[in-house]
Amino acid sequence: MSHFADRVLATIEAKRSHVVLGLDPDYAALPPAVRDKHEALDYQDEFDRAAGACREFLLTLLSELVHEVVAVKPQLAYFEALGAPGYALYLEVVKAALSLGYVVIADAKRGDIGSTAEAYARAHLEVAGADAVTVNPWFGSDGLEPFLRRAREEGKGVFVLVKTSNATSAEIQDQELADGDLVYERIAGLLRGWAAGTRGERGYASVAAVVGGTHPAQAAALRAALPGILFLVPGYGAQGARATDLARVFDRNGTGILVNSARAILYAYRVRSAPWVEAARQEAESMRAALWRAAGRG
Amino acid sequence: MSHFADRVLATIEAKRSHVVLGLDPDYAALPPAVRDKHEALDYQDEFDRAAGACREFLLTLLSELVHEVVAVKPQLAYFEALGAPGYALYLEVVKAALSLGYVVIADAKRGDIGSTAEAYARAHLEVAGADAVTVNPWFGSDGLEPFLRRAREEGKGVFVLVKTSNATSAEIQDQELADGDLVYERIAGLLRGWAAGTRGERGYASVAAVVGGTHPAQAAALRAALPGILFLVPGYGAQGARATDLARVFDRNGTGILVNSARAILYAYRVRSAPWVEAARQEAESMRAALWRAAGRG
Repeated sequence: MSHFADRVLATIEAKRSHVVLGLDPDYAALPPAVRDKHEALDYQDEFDRAAGACREFLLTLLSELVHEVVAVKPQLAYFEALGAPGYALYLEVVKAALSLGYVVIADAKRGDIGSTAEAYARAHLEVAGADAVTVNPWFGSDGLEPFLRRAREEGKGVFVLVKTSNATSAEIQDQELADGDLVYERIAGLLRGWAAGTRGERGYASVAAVVGGTHPAQAAALRAALPGILFLVPGYGAQGARATDLARVFDRNGTGILVNSARAILYAYRVRSAPWVEAARQEAESMRAALWRAAGRG
Repeated sequence: MSHFADRVLATIEAKRSHVVLGLDPDYAALPPAVRDKHEALDYQDEFDRAAGACREFLLTLLSELVHEVVAVKPQLAYFEALGAPGYALYLEVVKAALSLGYVVIADAKRGDIGSTAEAYARAHLEVAGADAVTVNPWFGSDGLEPFLRRAREEGKGVFVLVKTSNATSAEIQDQELADGDLVYERIAGLLRGWAAGTRGERGYASVAAVVGGTHPAQAAALRAALPGILFLVPGYGAQGARATDLARVFDRNGTGILVNSARAILYAYRVRSAPWVEAARQEAESMRAALWRAAGRG
C-alpha cells in the first residue's frame, strides 16, 4: 500500500516540480491540427468525435510532460460534458496517467450523505482508481467518512475544499462566525481532525486541503495553521496567481504544495509561437522553474 | 420553453402526488430474480453486467410507477460507481424518464468555479437533458451562475443545498454567524437573490431548495422564510422522516414540496410480501397517500 502524501512528496523531489496539470478537455480549444484530423474521421456522433480528439490530445500531453509535471488532475465536469464517451475517456486517462507514474487527483468535488458518499468514493478511488479525489465539506464529517476511511486504511488522498480560488468564495467561506472565526477557518479546524491517522513517514497527512492561489495572504495564514497538510493550489496561470504569490505557502523545506494549471498549459499554443506539444512543454517547464525558485530551491 | 416550477406544480396536481423516486441503483440490492437473470447472460465484464441488470430494474420501475411518482431523481454517485456503462445508463434513464412524462432531477450536487460549473451545467441540463439539477452552494454566486442562467433563460430547475438531511450537517450548516444567522439561513437569504427572474405563472421560482426532512422544525421555518420556493425534501423513508413531520412544510395550498424516497421504494421487496415491482408500487402509493393527507388534501 502506498501512502498518498509520502508518494507526492517523493515525486516532487524526484521531478524537482510542484506542477499539477489540470486536464480540462475542451473540444473548441484544441489545437486546429488535432480538430481537423478528427473532423475528417468517421464517428458515430459528435460526442464520440469530440472525445476521440480529446483522447489524442490528452494522451499525447501525458506522454510528453512526464519530466515537468508531478500530478494530473482530470476535471470531471469537462469529461461529463462529453457525454458517455467523455466519461469512458476519464477512466482511460486515469489509467494512462497512473501507468506513466503520475499522481492522479480526480477533481470531482463530490459531497453527499454517507451512503451516497460511499458510492462516490468507490467510483473515483476504486473503479476509476485515482490516487486522490477532491471533496466538498458542506455535509460535514459523515459525508466525508467514506473518503477518510480510504485515506486511513488504503493510503488514498482526499483534498477538502477549504478556500476556493473564485471571486465569490467570500459569500460563504469568508463569513464571520459568532466566535470570530471565518467559515473557512472552521473548515480548516475540522480538517485537522479529519486528517487524524493519515500521517506518513514524512509527517504529512493524506487528507489534504484545496486552497486557492488567488488569495495569497489567506493561503499563507492557512499554511501556518495547518502544518503537515498538503495544499492543492488552483488558480495559477489563467486565473491570475503567480509563483511569487505562493512563496509563503511552501513549508520551510520548500515543499508541501501542489500547484495546478490547466488551460495555460493545455492550450499554450494559443500564446506561444511553437507547435502545440512544445508550447505546452515550454509553459509547464516555465511554471516548474518559477515555482522551484519561489520555493527557495533553485 | 417549459417553466420548471410551473411544470412541477401542474404534475403534482395531475398525479395528486408529491413523490420523487430516487434512482440509486445498487447491484447487490437488486431483486434476486433480476440478478439471477443477468448472472446467466454473457457480458464483457462485471460493470457491464451490473449496469445491464440495473437497466432492466430501473426501466421496469419507470414504466410501472407513472401514476404514483411525479419526478425521478437519478443519484449520479450510484451510476458513476458502475463505471462507463453506469454513466451511459444514467443518460439512458434520463431520456426514458422524460419520455414517460416524469420530471427529471439530476442529483449531482455539483459545485465549482464558474468555467467548470458551466461544463457541469452543460453536462446535466443539456447533454443529459435533465429538467433540473442539484447544486452545492459552497462556491457562492459565480459558481452557480451557469445554472441560474439556464433557469432564467431556459426555464430549467436548480435545487440549491440549503440544509441537508444527514446528522453532521450541523457542523457547518448550523454554525452561528456573527450577525446571529445560522450558516444555512445565510444560504436561504442568498437563494432569494439567486431565484430572481425565475418565477413562473404560479408564483414559484425555478431556482429551488434542498431541505432535509429529518429536521422538521428547521424545514418549517425555512418554508415560512422562503415563500414561492420549491423544496426538494430528502430523508423520507430509509432516513427516517415521516409524512406527518412534513405537514408544516407544505404551502397553504398543500403543495410546493417534492419528497424523495429511494431505497424504501426501490428495494421494498425486502420488507413487503409481494413481487418486487408490486412491492415498489405499494410503497410508492402508500407514501403518495400519506403525503397527500399530510398536505391536507386527502
